Amino acid sequence: MANTTESHPNKTIAVVGGGLGGALCACFFAKHGINVHLFELRPDIRNQKVVKGRSINMALSRRGRDALAYINCEDVIVRNGIPMRARMLHDLKCHTAAVPYGTKPEHEIISIDRRILNELLLDEACKYPEIKIHFQHKFVSWNPENKIATFQNKSGENVDFEVDALIGYDGCHSAVRAAMMKTDSVNFSQEFVESHYMEFCIPPKNGEFVMEKNYLHIWPRHDFMLIALPNQDKSFTTTLFLPLNIFQTLTTTDELLAFFQKYFPDAISFIGQEDLIETFFSSKPLPLVSIKCSPHVSTNGDILLMGDAAHSMVPFYAQGMNSAFEDALVLFDKLKQNNFQFSTAFFDYNKTRIHDVHAIVDLSMYNYREMSHLVTQTSFYWRKKVDNCLYRLIPNWWVPLYTMVTFTRIPYKQCLALRQRQDQVLKLFRLTGYSVAGLYLLQKLATFVIKPLAKTPIVQNILPRFAATK
Amino acid sequence: MANTTESHPNKTIAVVGGGLGGALCACFFAKHGINVHLFELRPDIRNQKVVKGRSINMALSRRGRDALAYINCEDVIVRNGIPMRARMLHDLKCHTAAVPYGTKPEHEIISIDRRILNELLLDEACKYPEIKIHFQHKFVSWNPENKIATFQNKSGENVDFEVDALIGYDGCHSAVRAAMMKTDSVNFSQEFVESHYMEFCIPPKNGEFVMEKNYLHIWPRHDFMLIALPNQDKSFTTTLFLPLNIFQTLTTTDELLAFFQKYFPDAISFIGQEDLIETFFSSKPLPLVSIKCSPHVSTNGDILLMGDAAHSMVPFYAQGMNSAFEDALVLFDKLKQNNFQFSTAFFDYNKTRIHDVHAIVDLSMYNYREMSHLVTQTSFYWRKKVDNCLYRLIPNWWVPLYTMVTFTRIPYKQCLALRQRQDQVLKLFRLTGYSVAGLYLLQKLATFVIKPLAKTPIVQNILPRFAATK
Repeated sequence: MANTTESHPNKTIAVVGGGLGGALCACFFAKHGINVHLFELRPDIRNQKVVKGRSINMALSRRGRDALAYINCEDVIVRNGIPMRARMLHDLKCHTAAVPYGTKPEHEIISIDRRILNELLLDEACKYPEIKIHFQHKFVSWNPENKIATFQNKSGENVDFEVDALIGYDGCHSAVRAAMMKTDSVNFSQEFVESHYMEFCIPPKNGEFVMEKNYLHIWPRHDFMLIALPNQDKSFTTTLFLPLNIFQTLTTTDELLAFFQKYFPDAISFIGQEDLIETFFSSKPLPLVSIKCSPHVSTNGDILLMGDAAHSMVPFYAQGMNSAFEDALVLFDKLKQNNFQFSTAFFDYNKTRIHDVHAIVDLSMYNYREMSHLVTQTSFYWRKKVDNCLYRLIPNWWVPLYTMVTFTRIPYKQCLALRQRQDQVLKLFRLTGYSVAGLYLLQKLATFVIKPLAKTPIVQNILPRFAATK
Repeated sequence: MANTTESHPNKTIAVVGGGLGGALCACFFAKHGINVHLFELRPDIRNQKVVKGRSINMALSRRGRDALAYINCEDVIVRNGIPMRARMLHDLKCHTAAVPYGTKPEHEIISIDRRILNELLLDEACKYPEIKIHFQHKFVSWNPENKIATFQNKSGENVDFEVDALIGYDGCHSAVRAAMMKTDSVNFSQEFVESHYMEFCIPPKNGEFVMEKNYLHIWPRHDFMLIALPNQDKSFTTTLFLPLNIFQTLTTTDELLAFFQKYFPDAISFIGQEDLIETFFSSKPLPLVSIKCSPHVSTNGDILLMGDAAHSMVPFYAQGMNSAFEDALVLFDKLKQNNFQFSTAFFDYNKTRIHDVHAIVDLSMYNYREMSHLVTQTSFYWRKKVDNCLYRLIPNWWVPLYTMVTFTRIPYKQCLALRQRQDQVLKLFRLTGYSVAGLYLLQKLATFVIKPLAKTPIVQNILPRFAATK
């Protein structure tokens, strides 16, 4: 039985969505002794057939790990993944170069199979007697008058559940959000990007990884890119991001192979020519969408949208799952501050969290340009060098954007604001044309001016400090 | 029988929505000999009971009138409305001041009852043998494979219609748009404003209008405002626009009357104290929303969204209906250019029209600030004076934004771009502190520099000309 810290036997919550965020959030409530009905549209994933080589990978980082640690699941989940310590860039001539994610040993991201992670979280939820999981239950409606949530079970019958509040963790096509938008004035936007994606598999060869294991492999090509994340079965989940109009020009085997030969020559043999052709012509390019909505709480304070239901983002900062998990951490801070009064805590959560998740939705779009475009430019390397160099010298004063987002719990909106401040400082460096001389000057400035100054009490009081949580 | 100009007996179109735009558009198709199925969710409005004093008014201007003229309905509809030649501003001391809409006699807007307009358009549609109207038919689905549109009739049965294409003119909650968003990647945003609205009636007194007839009356109060439009029954449809949080502070009769006494003293006696109280406490403040989506055409080119289904706007430029009507004019330009090939014309329409309707959605939001806030400032008067003065002097070179939007058919996006150019020029004027001296200088500049220069062939060739269509 899992560890319950307190007891609220009179409170019951409905969590809609038994995916990653919903299963995690159910455990959070149960840990505090709150009764949970967890509803999932699909059958139990743990009883489904595994399709070999068709995994989807998640990249777990600080925010997600902290949330897993809250329910004592961090270690088991990290053990089921593969750490990635750097990006491995593949150029047109098949040369590779590593660009580390951070400067410290703990600056690693965990590549983990979505299905394994979901199964582990459902196993964890099953340990709490407070949680009842209802698979194949489709959300139908919420009645705010008598607080009854209605679901359609697999026999097609409507079943009512009386609960204190409703959490919509039901993904980017959220049925809870759709219901809330019918009764409340919800600002909403969805934006598709020109790039679509298609997944391939790089299988192991002679029982071994065919590329270096502990890396996120990237083939950046300006308007498009290929990425590959390692799995524990020694395969790589490989994703092609390509504008739809280019996808549509590749109509024959020859066109496809010529395209890969030109832009991703080494990837052809990794994926295998036959599998590449088979997968490409039997799959449909899938769209990528950014979704924002506001507010995340209903007018009555009885419904809260979390995770992808509240904020879907393009996958280029790998913060979709991490931000969805962090939502639970932020909510439970608010619940504790408000003595577990749901509606007050929901309004409090909405007030601050909304700006942070809007920031990460925007940052994810920004990182798409960085991953596909900027990594091919010299200025990108220099920016990373300057960032890391300043971070080493004045770690409480200068944290690179990627590090803040991925390896700290600094609120996303603050990450964005700090980056804008850093950009002002870096204009100095840009004036010298990203040169070694400029880097040298900045380094000297940091060592002899900023660092000693930073130690004076006056400056310490005036300027904000942004230490990482770990 | 209405006048049909040509014949396309093999073509059939489904128009969803028998409101203003849908009824008009059906006539456009029929005029070109195309068969039309026109579907409306509600029963025939012409058989419904008239609720006295509960009218909603539309403000018809150039774009709308040109569309009505296309189906020979302009005159009959204008005769059923009341022309408004100026804004009549009411200040806190009950003083009034008129600010004309334009400089020419034809610069008037027609105030017309929504219901009367809809009835006239349905009557017109009934004259064409090409049009079949289906009331109480709810759009269910569109099958692009066999081009079958399915509707649920009032008995609850599904009925199929085989057509060449589907037009969604079904308003801001469009069912056609919702269906298209399920299959296609449609960018979409909806944004509510803090202001909500509530409608009152200023009845006639002794059989006469209680205020000057040919004006749009405005009580601008920065964060909120009251407006009143004349009706042929000598009443005024009166609308209060107020932030929701202020609505919520008015919970008692005393609070309501004190609020009106302070901000709209003359309006209390116009509406009548008892009616004011009765209406206020029996009505719910209604929200205002801006909606944009992109594209307006389906991937297959077989569905087109028009009017509010494609672009809903806050009502502050009175261009919601006018832009919805102009959509039909633009579509038929494209249809004629493409020899009535629906999909090609739809794609063509989407390419240009989308930017124009996004511009008017934005301009409507901008005009909210102008109507409620700017009209109370001296700079607003001066801007209008300068605008009109320059317009008189160099009418081909300087058309005020309001005039362009309301009294010409200059594409909305171009209106916005021209205004931005004008703003640059007006910085000159602003530098002199909006003074009479500044106005004098600008006038002289126009008379002795711009006007003669404008007549030289070189300048005429270099600079674009923006003459109004009428």
